[in-house]
Amino acid sequence: MLELYHHGSSACAAKVRITLDEKNIPWKGHYIDTLKGEQFHPDYAKLNPKCVVPTVVHDGQVIRESTVICEYLEEVFTDVRLFPSETLRRAGVRIWSKAIDEELHPATRIVTFAASHRHNVLKKSKQELEDFINAVRDANRREAKRGAIMKGFEFAESRDALMIFDHHLSEMEKALCETTWLIGQDYSFADAAMTVYINRLDMLGMAGMWEGVRPKLEDWWTRVRSRPSFQTALFNWLPEELADEMQSNGAKSWPQVKAILDTT
Amino acid sequence: MLELYHHGSSACAAKVRITLDEKNIPWKGHYIDTLKGEQFHPDYAKLNPKCVVPTVVHDGQVIRESTVICEYLEEVFTDVRLFPSETLRRAGVRIWSKAIDEELHPATRIVTFAASHRHNVLKKSKQELEDFINAVRDANRREAKRGAIMKGFEFAESRDALMIFDHHLSEMEKALCETTWLIGQDYSFADAAMTVYINRLDMLGMAGMWEGVRPKLEDWWTRVRSRPSFQTALFNWLPEELADEMQSNGAKSWPQVKAILDTT
Repeated sequence: MLELYHHGSSACAAKVRITLDEKNIPWKGHYIDTLKGEQFHPDYAKLNPKCVVPTVVHDGQVIRESTVICEYLEEVFTDVRLFPSETLRRAGVRIWSKAIDEELHPATRIVTFAASHRHNVLKKSKQELEDFINAVRDANRREAKRGAIMKGFEFAESRDALMIFDHHLSEMEKALCETTWLIGQDYSFADAAMTVYINRLDMLGMAGMWEGVRPKLEDWWTRVRSRPSFQTALFNWLPEELADEMQSNGAKSWPQVKAILDTT
Repeated sequence: MLELYHHGSSACAAKVRITLDEKNIPWKGHYIDTLKGEQFHPDYAKLNPKCVVPTVVHDGQVIRESTVICEYLEEVFTDVRLFPSETLRRAGVRIWSKAIDEELHPATRIVTFAASHRHNVLKKSKQELEDFINAVRDANRREAKRGAIMKGFEFAESRDALMIFDHHLSEMEKALCETTWLIGQDYSFADAAMTVYINRLDMLGMAGMWEGVRPKLEDWWTRVRSRPSFQTALFNWLPEELADEMQSNGAKSWPQVKAILDTT
């Protein structure tokens, strides 16, 4: 039996859901409402001491960290393969995945706050706002969050985060000029993992970063969205209110985002 | 033929050298003197567009990113195994490796600057110092570097970086109470990768973080240092002057470091 502890707004949880769906692995879900702080419940903290989603429990064994979980699933459930059989291409998938985890994932947090979440968060009282920001233990992440909330895209790091996305979108366009999917002729974990992050940009009204300007990426995005895993893994679990909020706030941010992209 | 582009002061390059040595893989080295900026040479930038070491070229194929390189080497050279055969333990190795790449590696940069490099860097003229700091493109990393240089361990992020190490040393002690090596009874890539970061603390005069206080880790460190890969991978390539500098500066920092660890 495979159990997944997850939430609708977590990019890492969505990545695991895509992998489970693409590989046709049956799973039982436990919804941890991170917007209500359920990840800090002592029972969950025992499973995942970092108090983050996702966590997988497979036949009683606990596996954490979305990328590690997906490689584990690949090795245990071998009917549908998301990692190429050729060693060099497998390294290629891991390079994409590493760039996602180490560069795009932190950038996503900042971009999402700068484009959308800040508008809600700024409705808090001064003390609530301070408490909300200070709940982030890591000093680096805390100050990035503070800047994105207080200054939006006027904050240098928010603009840097946009440029990180712009760089990786260019790399995707380059890769897709050579092959059908990011690594070769078959859909792989690189495509699955990237789906979550491109979807975030799309939800934040930033599809102009590829529409009409990066045709290969545009085509890739059409193909990704037509896969059955897309709706089930990304939208069935996303709170509707959150989706609406990101879309309406994001649309308002786009002119400023476009101006930044055009001038840098 | 396997070629390694590397340097003596790079933690990531050292990790690949340990892996090559532990697996008895013959290699030809190309020394890229990052202290002289050789990583920015156009020929090298073609191999590694991020202009960082290490890069491996194996039978004409380029592989980047130290962790991806080491997993590639594991899959191609199968005589000596550094990843356990059991799936769950393999996930365990990857969780250590991920914590190293995403938490300890950035912390190492800050700790090294705060404890040692800052003393040299502060000898630069005001303009040279600004240029040195501004050469870091990523805003987050740039400001972390600036803080560690200007304020040493008075900088909140430098203290946070120490606490990240302290946390992972505790995790190591816990793991080593259960098993001989970090993942099970056999030496694995988790031990190889961690070696580089514990060695950095040791060189910076911070062995007091385990000596006399974390006996299992102390014993692990003795065993790691007695392996043939230790001297060849970590010390044969390190510029002697740099080693001396880290040791003498680090020793001076220790009282302040100990005071921070004792009070937090």
